[in-house]
Amino acid sequence: MAEMTVTPWEVVGEIDYEKLTQQFGTQLITAALRERLKRPHAMLRRGLYYSHRDLGKFLDAADKKQRISIVTGRGPSGKMHIGHTIPLLIAKYFQDEYDCEVFIPVSEDEKYYVKPDLSYEQAEKYAQDNILDIIALGFDPKKTKIHRDFQYTTIYKYAAKIAKHMTYSTAKAAFGLTPSHNLGWTFYPAMQSAHIYLPQFLHGPHMTLVPIGIDQDPFMRVLRDVADHPEIKLMKPGAVHSKFMPALKGPGTKMSASDPDSAIWLSDGPKDVERKVKRYAFSGGRDTIEEHRRLGGNPDIDVSYQWLTIFEEDDKKLKKIYDDYKSGKLLSGELKGMLIDKINVFLAEHQKRRVKAGKQVEKFLLK
Amino acid sequence: MAEMTVTPWEVVGEIDYEKLTQQFGTQLITAALRERLKRPHAMLRRGLYYSHRDLGKFLDAADKKQRISIVTGRGPSGKMHIGHTIPLLIAKYFQDEYDCEVFIPVSEDEKYYVKPDLSYEQAEKYAQDNILDIIALGFDPKKTKIHRDFQYTTIYKYAAKIAKHMTYSTAKAAFGLTPSHNLGWTFYPAMQSAHIYLPQFLHGPHMTLVPIGIDQDPFMRVLRDVADHPEIKLMKPGAVHSKFMPALKGPGTKMSASDPDSAIWLSDGPKDVERKVKRYAFSGGRDTIEEHRRLGGNPDIDVSYQWLTIFEEDDKKLKKIYDDYKSGKLLSGELKGMLIDKINVFLAEHQKRRVKAGKQVEKFLLK
Repeated sequence: MAEMTVTPWEVVGEIDYEKLTQQFGTQLITAALRERLKRPHAMLRRGLYYSHRDLGKFLDAADKKQRISIVTGRGPSGKMHIGHTIPLLIAKYFQDEYDCEVFIPVSEDEKYYVKPDLSYEQAEKYAQDNILDIIALGFDPKKTKIHRDFQYTTIYKYAAKIAKHMTYSTAKAAFGLTPSHNLGWTFYPAMQSAHIYLPQFLHGPHMTLVPIGIDQDPFMRVLRDVADHPEIKLMKPGAVHSKFMPALKGPGTKMSASDPDSAIWLSDGPKDVERKVKRYAFSGGRDTIEEHRRLGGNPDIDVSYQWLTIFEEDDKKLKKIYDDYKSGKLLSGELKGMLIDKINVFLAEHQKRRVKAGKQVEKFLLK
Repeated sequence: MAEMTVTPWEVVGEIDYEKLTQQFGTQLITAALRERLKRPHAMLRRGLYYSHRDLGKFLDAADKKQRISIVTGRGPSGKMHIGHTIPLLIAKYFQDEYDCEVFIPVSEDEKYYVKPDLSYEQAEKYAQDNILDIIALGFDPKKTKIHRDFQYTTIYKYAAKIAKHMTYSTAKAAFGLTPSHNLGWTFYPAMQSAHIYLPQFLHGPHMTLVPIGIDQDPFMRVLRDVADHPEIKLMKPGAVHSKFMPALKGPGTKMSASDPDSAIWLSDGPKDVERKVKRYAFSGGRDTIEEHRRLGGNPDIDVSYQWLTIFEEDDKKLKKIYDDYKSGKLLSGELKGMLIDKINVFLAEHQKRRVKAGKQVEKFLLK
């Protein structure tokens, strides 16, 4: 396996998650911190979210009934698959449990800058499409602000305030920019920072928490450094960092639009889901039923099991699945069946809501 | 005198204007081209505007009654002095003679990025103040669009289209960017390019002409290079380049807000103008009246005479002034008196119009 490289635009090799926290300077989410969370979501309970910055300060502010907010975004590089919902569902968890405002920047500009063949128009179309999926996840229109960089261009004013105090050299060090990167990509760290400071720019200093994949942490590191600048004077935003959702086809594969069978898309029908999980979900089971019954499966590498840790809310049920699979009582086909059911329930609901989302867009968009 | 350095943000040393055209790759405005201009403005007739890019193509388009437009901007780093009107007055000349639309971007973002001590709020205030002066110059509200980067943030969408196709390395080479420059400054070439392509982004491909100081030409060079990109496909904007207006106090001095007596400000009253011109205007006259009468003055280094080449429209009168000053018939005090009168007539009218400009702002602002 290749050596680990993790940047906001590239993840290569086998990931050593603890090493990443050291490399980035983030903290592991301790059991004590986890216990402070109100009815923690499965992804928080089970360690998919495993690292943080200032989660404690965020919870302190929540305890004191101070204003708090959540920011999590979407880079619209294509239609959305199930893995893309991970930060969004955690944002929704915080909205539901902490009754706080959620800001969702949709950065079509980033994708436009980063993908040589993505046209401006296509980037906008993906953004519009993805916004329907975001709304369909069930956010509260009264407490959710979605904004696109090519539409809510007011964001440039806020990006300017950051950009004045962030040097090229800082961005270069954090993101590995080179002189052949285009100016948009070079500027993007200021835009991303503006997204994350936006709740504070609009409502004044308060604690914001940002659910993101650990690969996005370099943005947090760089943007937190400008918080104290006399011209900024905002609170350093906190973050909770997730591990990567295992790819459907297992280690060394990616969920990518270039291979429709590599992922479960939010637009997939029940038959697609069944076919893909049955055919492609990387299995920790044995080669034959007899062997499986005798030796048991390995849930720790089984993608269907890993995905159930996200989709099966009930801890007891999940434990039983784990134990039964490990003992050989539960067969791979049965495990896959459970996942297929869970995903199809989720997607049926999602797709129903998505049809209605078109009419709700205006309620969500920041003006 | 120091060696010549000319960048959009720094002008040092004695300027060799012809050398600059070679260095930047621009063309001298020939007599033949000048003769094609409709009733050329004094600044065009007398060579203050001396260099160009594609002025011929612009005039061809005008001859063919195709759409043409003018873009010239203002970086609001403080209140405006008389030198700042030079590109604006030429823009107005083209509007008057060629009946074309004029776009005037006001780049408070650039000044904010470039001046470490300029606050965001102050940059906006200067922009608002300068817009009144711009309007007071007499632009036609039906054919003039003024826009500020922190207000008409839609410009970011257009800057993005340029930014994708302009590398850091290109901007670095053209503008001498270093890693310690902030991200806003680094991105600014894309914003400036968007200003100049804006008429084409809004109305489709056509010839645009940009009156600018020759020091600003690196922007033109860089932005013209992206015109042919398949995602841009616009016409390369042309430019007419002016020499620098001589500073009031003469060679080696600058007109700067840090020394209010260094320039004539658009807000100066008649007494200010009289005092400053009499006391500070660098003179090509002799030390004594007797000597002046006997040997004559040197109009070519005399700031009052140089400024009259801008403010005295009548070529015959100007020639007589030149001849009389050179022969010693016209004294320095008399020459200064002529300039004082010209400036005060201009400023009285300007200041009257400026009072009314406040009510007109909305008519000029691009939405």
